[in-house]
Amino acid sequence: MKKHRRSLVDVLDGEVLSPPPIWLMRQAGRYLPEYRQTRAQAGSFLDLCYTPELATEVTLQPIRRFGFDAAILFSDILVIPDALKRNVRFTEGHGPQMDPISVDDIARLEAAYSSDKLSAVMETVRSLRSALPDETTLLGFCGAPWTVATYMIAGHGTPDQAPARLFAYQNPLEFARLLDVLAEISAGYLIDQLDAGADAVQIFDSWAGVLGEVEFEKFCARPVARMIEMVRAVRPGAKVIAFAKGAGVQLRDYRRITKADAIGLDWTVPLSFAKELQSEGAVQGNLDPLRVVAGGTTLDEGVDRILEALGGGPFIFNLGHGITPQADPENVDRLVKRIRNRL
Amino acid sequence: MKKHRRSLVDVLDGEVLSPPPIWLMRQAGRYLPEYRQTRAQAGSFLDLCYTPELATEVTLQPIRRFGFDAAILFSDILVIPDALKRNVRFTEGHGPQMDPISVDDIARLEAAYSSDKLSAVMETVRSLRSALPDETTLLGFCGAPWTVATYMIAGHGTPDQAPARLFAYQNPLEFARLLDVLAEISAGYLIDQLDAGADAVQIFDSWAGVLGEVEFEKFCARPVARMIEMVRAVRPGAKVIAFAKGAGVQLRDYRRITKADAIGLDWTVPLSFAKELQSEGAVQGNLDPLRVVAGGTTLDEGVDRILEALGGGPFIFNLGHGITPQADPENVDRLVKRIRNRL
Repeated sequence: MKKHRRSLVDVLDGEVLSPPPIWLMRQAGRYLPEYRQTRAQAGSFLDLCYTPELATEVTLQPIRRFGFDAAILFSDILVIPDALKRNVRFTEGHGPQMDPISVDDIARLEAAYSSDKLSAVMETVRSLRSALPDETTLLGFCGAPWTVATYMIAGHGTPDQAPARLFAYQNPLEFARLLDVLAEISAGYLIDQLDAGADAVQIFDSWAGVLGEVEFEKFCARPVARMIEMVRAVRPGAKVIAFAKGAGVQLRDYRRITKADAIGLDWTVPLSFAKELQSEGAVQGNLDPLRVVAGGTTLDEGVDRILEALGGGPFIFNLGHGITPQADPENVDRLVKRIRNRL
Repeated sequence: MKKHRRSLVDVLDGEVLSPPPIWLMRQAGRYLPEYRQTRAQAGSFLDLCYTPELATEVTLQPIRRFGFDAAILFSDILVIPDALKRNVRFTEGHGPQMDPISVDDIARLEAAYSSDKLSAVMETVRSLRSALPDETTLLGFCGAPWTVATYMIAGHGTPDQAPARLFAYQNPLEFARLLDVLAEISAGYLIDQLDAGADAVQIFDSWAGVLGEVEFEKFCARPVARMIEMVRAVRPGAKVIAFAKGAGVQLRDYRRITKADAIGLDWTVPLSFAKELQSEGAVQGNLDPLRVVAGGTTLDEGVDRILEALGGGPFIFNLGHGITPQADPENVDRLVKRIRNRL
């Protein structure tokens, strides 16, 4: 087996690695007892994100335990609305909440921006880069404009993002302006993460699956393309993974439009379709997180099918969505061993 | 313009009609003031479903107002768990609830079944057929086994159907048994509706979009195929529309497996992909319901794009999901006129 330095970056460059690099979305999280212990030392969830010692500690925990090939900065996509003074708060058991944005607020939004709190995030990135093993890729991230906008408009998470979808139909100019502001600020935020030591970044479009094709291109694909262009204008060759969860058929044109180095795939993407997408570049995914909860042969079969279909091309093993709190860490251990000992 | 008798049935036979027949999912519903008035006369929501005079009245209301080409029986997919004695109740503002089913309950499930309450539904179908204009297609319907099972396992609606997905991984045999029981009882229920006067039926798989490809075939496509086979064994040539909401790429094989006469498309299905699906048979859909809320040119543009892409093949105009309570009936009027006066 060839030994790779930051193997995930090599895959983003188009290399085929066997076994593939592996990390898991939300790998620093509630399924780990050590995370729950550190979490208890912070006040609110955002305090945890903004306290570099604690955020560094929880980011490193899954690397120590499982030796993943990538660490992802511990933070949240809603630090951007927080920096835009939308009064973001996380209440236990309620999901995130913030002040719903009005049409009038949008004109004043950019002026409200302050990067003060985000400087703590950059301190975390710097401390992570020096603490991580040299072969471990450090990933930065942010939310995509559409997904962040859905929270800003509704003021909270919604089952089908209807408030944002309707807002966009009824106020197309203001909505476009909101996406522009988010794209610009988020691109700057990613550039800062790369400057602080991130090797690559992932853009999360968690609610990409609720849009028609015209809106998907306008609200998801084009703003992410613009962000990647802005990032690369400052950091040529910057590596980006774009994850449009639930986008299904719409992923056909997503790589071409966004120019992302890798496309994240959720667990509903059929492997035959994933292979088609892989013929144009690296893909990442896509095990159903509930297979990690179920464990045993349910887990093994899921892993094997994915490796068989995608292992022959540029590929990053991941889940199709974040690992859930009820996953047993022993199953994660089994998953990692299954991938690494298979070949 | 050619005058058609039950034009929707002609499209299910493969005919191309211009303008296409039109109906809207949830067309009898809260957006209509006359519905809200009738609704107030029933106690619970299920009382409304089980009272033939009231259910007939609300089914006819949108036909009187808009002259849709099809009326769909007013009922609910959860009358099947209700007939299986799962203690189904609809509480205002809470969504449906029922007793969550256990592994042990599944063995006893079939024995609990009683068609007593469903006979009221058949009375509604008969009264509808005699009350409807002769050219109006009468559609019966039921939920698909997977979607109904998600409610039975969780005991309520869930954002990602995780309880049912996990139950299926952990108890594959019992879960398969549950789907079998639901398929068999639902097929019998559809046959009864056809016998009572329904011209065609639609099978709603509202939560088809959360499954991986192996599970989609096993839990969605195959059980619906089995239902259609059972129905046609008794009623040869019975016409069926299958609507797997959110299934996206998975729709590629859905018609071939299920042998449905038409495939329902939600609003996220790109029209180029819809056209591919239409090359193998009739499709139905797929306007974003929120365009009906927005109205104006947002509505017109959505309608025009769909007609342009799909109007040249076997096609039934519909929304991509149920019409929402906040839709203005005047926008529905505009929608119908736009389709019918276009050609």
